[in-house]
Amino acid sequence: MLNRFCKKPLYEVTRTLARVAMGEEKAELVIQNARLVNVCTAEIQEGVDVAITEGRIALVGDAAHCVGEHTVVIDAAGQYIAPGFMDAHIHVESSMITVGEYARAVVPRGTTGIFMDPHEICNVCGPDGVRAMIEDAKRSPLKAMSNVPSCVPAVAGFEDTGSRIGPEEVREMMAWDGVMGLGEMMNFPGVLAADAAIHGELAETLKADQVITGHYSVPDIGAGLNAYIASGVRCCHESTRAVDVLEKMRHGMYALMRYGSAWHDMPVIIRAILDNHIDDRFACLISDDTHPDTLIEDGHMDHIVRCAVREGLDPIKAVQYVTINPATCFRMDHELGSITPGKCADIVFFDDLKDVRVTRTIIDGEVVAENGKMTVEIGKSAFPSACYDTMHVGHPITAESFRIAAPAGKDSVKARVIEIIPNRVGNYERLLDLSVKNGFAEADPAQDVMKMAVFERHHATGTTGRGFVKGFGFRKGAMAQTVAHDAHNLLVAGTNDEDMALAANTLIACGGGLCAVADGTVLAQVPLPIAGLMNDLPVEEMAELVGRLSAAWREMGCTINSPYMTMALIPLACLPELRLTNRGLVDCRSFRFTELFAD
Amino acid sequence: MLNRFCKKPLYEVTRTLARVAMGEEKAELVIQNARLVNVCTAEIQEGVDVAITEGRIALVGDAAHCVGEHTVVIDAAGQYIAPGFMDAHIHVESSMITVGEYARAVVPRGTTGIFMDPHEICNVCGPDGVRAMIEDAKRSPLKAMSNVPSCVPAVAGFEDTGSRIGPEEVREMMAWDGVMGLGEMMNFPGVLAADAAIHGELAETLKADQVITGHYSVPDIGAGLNAYIASGVRCCHESTRAVDVLEKMRHGMYALMRYGSAWHDMPVIIRAILDNHIDDRFACLISDDTHPDTLIEDGHMDHIVRCAVREGLDPIKAVQYVTINPATCFRMDHELGSITPGKCADIVFFDDLKDVRVTRTIIDGEVVAENGKMTVEIGKSAFPSACYDTMHVGHPITAESFRIAAPAGKDSVKARVIEIIPNRVGNYERLLDLSVKNGFAEADPAQDVMKMAVFERHHATGTTGRGFVKGFGFRKGAMAQTVAHDAHNLLVAGTNDEDMALAANTLIACGGGLCAVADGTVLAQVPLPIAGLMNDLPVEEMAELVGRLSAAWREMGCTINSPYMTMALIPLACLPELRLTNRGLVDCRSFRFTELFAD
Repeated sequence: MLNRFCKKPLYEVTRTLARVAMGEEKAELVIQNARLVNVCTAEIQEGVDVAITEGRIALVGDAAHCVGEHTVVIDAAGQYIAPGFMDAHIHVESSMITVGEYARAVVPRGTTGIFMDPHEICNVCGPDGVRAMIEDAKRSPLKAMSNVPSCVPAVAGFEDTGSRIGPEEVREMMAWDGVMGLGEMMNFPGVLAADAAIHGELAETLKADQVITGHYSVPDIGAGLNAYIASGVRCCHESTRAVDVLEKMRHGMYALMRYGSAWHDMPVIIRAILDNHIDDRFACLISDDTHPDTLIEDGHMDHIVRCAVREGLDPIKAVQYVTINPATCFRMDHELGSITPGKCADIVFFDDLKDVRVTRTIIDGEVVAENGKMTVEIGKSAFPSACYDTMHVGHPITAESFRIAAPAGKDSVKARVIEIIPNRVGNYERLLDLSVKNGFAEADPAQDVMKMAVFERHHATGTTGRGFVKGFGFRKGAMAQTVAHDAHNLLVAGTNDEDMALAANTLIACGGGLCAVADGTVLAQVPLPIAGLMNDLPVEEMAELVGRLSAAWREMGCTINSPYMTMALIPLACLPELRLTNRGLVDCRSFRFTELFAD
Repeated sequence: MLNRFCKKPLYEVTRTLARVAMGEEKAELVIQNARLVNVCTAEIQEGVDVAITEGRIALVGDAAHCVGEHTVVIDAAGQYIAPGFMDAHIHVESSMITVGEYARAVVPRGTTGIFMDPHEICNVCGPDGVRAMIEDAKRSPLKAMSNVPSCVPAVAGFEDTGSRIGPEEVREMMAWDGVMGLGEMMNFPGVLAADAAIHGELAETLKADQVITGHYSVPDIGAGLNAYIASGVRCCHESTRAVDVLEKMRHGMYALMRYGSAWHDMPVIIRAILDNHIDDRFACLISDDTHPDTLIEDGHMDHIVRCAVREGLDPIKAVQYVTINPATCFRMDHELGSITPGKCADIVFFDDLKDVRVTRTIIDGEVVAENGKMTVEIGKSAFPSACYDTMHVGHPITAESFRIAAPAGKDSVKARVIEIIPNRVGNYERLLDLSVKNGFAEADPAQDVMKMAVFERHHATGTTGRGFVKGFGFRKGAMAQTVAHDAHNLLVAGTNDEDMALAANTLIACGGGLCAVADGTVLAQVPLPIAGLMNDLPVEEMAELVGRLSAAWREMGCTINSPYMTMALIPLACLPELRLTNRGLVDCRSFRFTELFAD
């Protein structure tokens, strides 16, 4: 694919690069005396120089003749250099910060490129939201290559989103400058069932000569996986077993091994490579979703590389998995992913190959970060005003809004309750007896059962789903959030109607986000005014806000890990077993709406 | 790049493939019980089935559920299957046969795709010649993917060709259906010197998102090689030392290791891989130029794979070098080069991995060859009439045409004589004393010196270069050929003017080719009426004709290997030291015309 993520396209600068390599012109920048992690041949080369001009590499080897009086010289003094790290699958919105701020967090860690799938904002703001993310990225040097979200809504017919994507939108968006590939095709049932609209999206992507990224999360690695790959999907990050990775790679699919904040699949699935003597050119490491505190405390791809090496992976291979392999996955290896002539000069420096800690990041030939900090300015975010105006519930929310009328004449009811499973994406349907008061079914803290509601918040349709959830451990209060996958409606859960109403109205007032309420008081709040998903605050401040929210939830009795992430998945109707959307309770085994009360 | 070399583009058939993989529709063809050479993971997998429909692979694994009553089933009975072999750099014209006939020769050997660089015919017939090659290929199932010749003429200003290629032609031709990439950029001095027209061709190729193929044949693996690669060249087949291969791969360039009829570089240069423990994803095997007798006696890529394995290369790697690696080089690995879902069903069968002898070839899901023979019809060639009308010398050639006037009043002269070196592309300049008779310098069989002439034959310009050549061992007679790189003018050499005139006129009469004459008699003749380069006869007949010519040359006293190939390079002014073109004698060290007589 043509590379639009560079200072200048190669075809404009081949003459200059040739002259610099020959010493006829002097380089703008020369790195001297480095230890090159050569990802092409999987070797370490000592005493290597790199000559750079116009944002691209002119020469790798002895660059003495490329140094002139205006050449900036960096003495690597024997430090390792490697191609800048790339994340082949990432949702920036999960970090709750803007793309520019995300760049500020990850570039000093050595990330120079991401293939982002902005399907969260697309569910809220549609293609305009995707465009806003692409535009926002431009204020940073990070190469934020955007996929076109493929599944908006995630599960059509069961929820209401702010927008929808079909083959026509895919066709249009594929021509956008900042776009590279189709976002994760979560509707694998549609792919396997030869659904016309889904395959229409695949076809438009292939016609545009772009890459289809995958999401194949079921254990059928026979017919189903073959059907999925035969439909043109080139990579997948949903492996949870080593055999998933092995079979995907054997079938020519890039296996993107995930190590995000919440889902730690990599240590398990990397056994596919560690335990088998196989060619691993189809292996990559990715993050998928990262919370702001993970970015600050652990890092990004550097962290994942370190973790993979700790699991026993050869460090050079680990570097290949975040450089040349993802570049080849996206058919961009002629532009990115190696320190070789002609490529974009995206280069990281570090001291220890077995414990990669990046000390300097170069993008397009410019030093953009040193010692953990950006060395170039990142401008202010400028999301369009429409992205700041996404709370359209359309009716007042009061304590009455959370009442759940029981069948007439009952003192107690048997309800279908969603029981969460900490640290897992799946959940269970439980049939539980709940008491009825004044005709309304009630929450029951004694059984760890809260009330729950999902208010449509995009087009003021007034639709609201109501139900019960078990397992969060709350003894009091309520929580609300507009990060509620993938439609990102207004999700509220609580032990009493008054606190629930306060939580909901708190988020409506601040344009969306997350909050915790107890005894009529807002304990903590993470405002996410951009689409109800992001804030343009610095990542450090966001991490602090999220930390306070976590503390509030603990105070209310919730002890599970990342509870807001587990809560956020409750409306995602493509996961088993029981989900609640703004349209009601969905049985995700039969893909049918179901009644809240069983009797 | 979009694949135009398939039965149907993937985007048209994803739904069908998905249905077949799921068993909802039955496959057209199922291969059962094969040993799969998995080029993705470099493993052998036992007991593998492959389900195929619409020319593409729907499933690899257990295909029992894909078999219906109309499914053709091939029981591999434990035979190996591998992706069809590809040659990443080949000039079909060197085999002196048409592309269709070439296909008939190589497809039964397991070749399913070639990246051909038709620069020989382009020198004679221009872009129309290239188009004729592409059209000719369509009568066979072979995927003949054509490069756009980059260097026509090979060395501008020193010879006259039938056509010329510049950036504008490259721009136009890149949009052609049958085109994939730019042909070997032989003008590496122009690349290194930042020549505007040469870089214009590179730029047009890069703008078209196509691959630039290389020809970098000098020992400078420092500045020069870097400048060349930085200019966007992705592969090169001109390595003659192991270190060339190593440095090219280290610099992210695909090293195409050559094993053609005349140049046997591979056994030497493959040491780069055999002696170093490196990642070899940038390694390929190619043929470059193959004579018809080699195709018949030895084979094509199967032969080269066998030779590489005999040198000690792991057989699975050897298969990777002719499948997934060349496919990735041309950024076509999502379409070709592996037996994985969605890819073109180009598959070969063989019994012994260490001695690959292909017994069946499938292209686009159809069995096209079995047991050494095509099983599908290849139609008649239909080159346009212009390609059959390329002998335009424009003046009668007689014995007088070969007279070389000596400086007035001399009995003998000191002449600059071209001395050939058997089995090498270079030659030497020798200063030799030649006798003068009636004012004309004479050939001298005692010193093994023949006369030589090159007649421009494209546009009847009447230009003729004359000189002397040493080293062929001829005791009598003359030889002529229109295979005379790269301008392919009419080249004649001989011991006497009368036989030379007969040889020249014999070729003019038959539309070009090669012939040997002695004592006023034509001893052997290989007519090449298509552009003076090819004949549409079957390869077997061509091999026989070439064999008779070789016998005639031996009879005339020439004992060196492939003499017509060595002779054919005499006009190629980009090789050292002294060359003769239709414009005169060229000193290829200084790139200047030089005088024939030194005194």
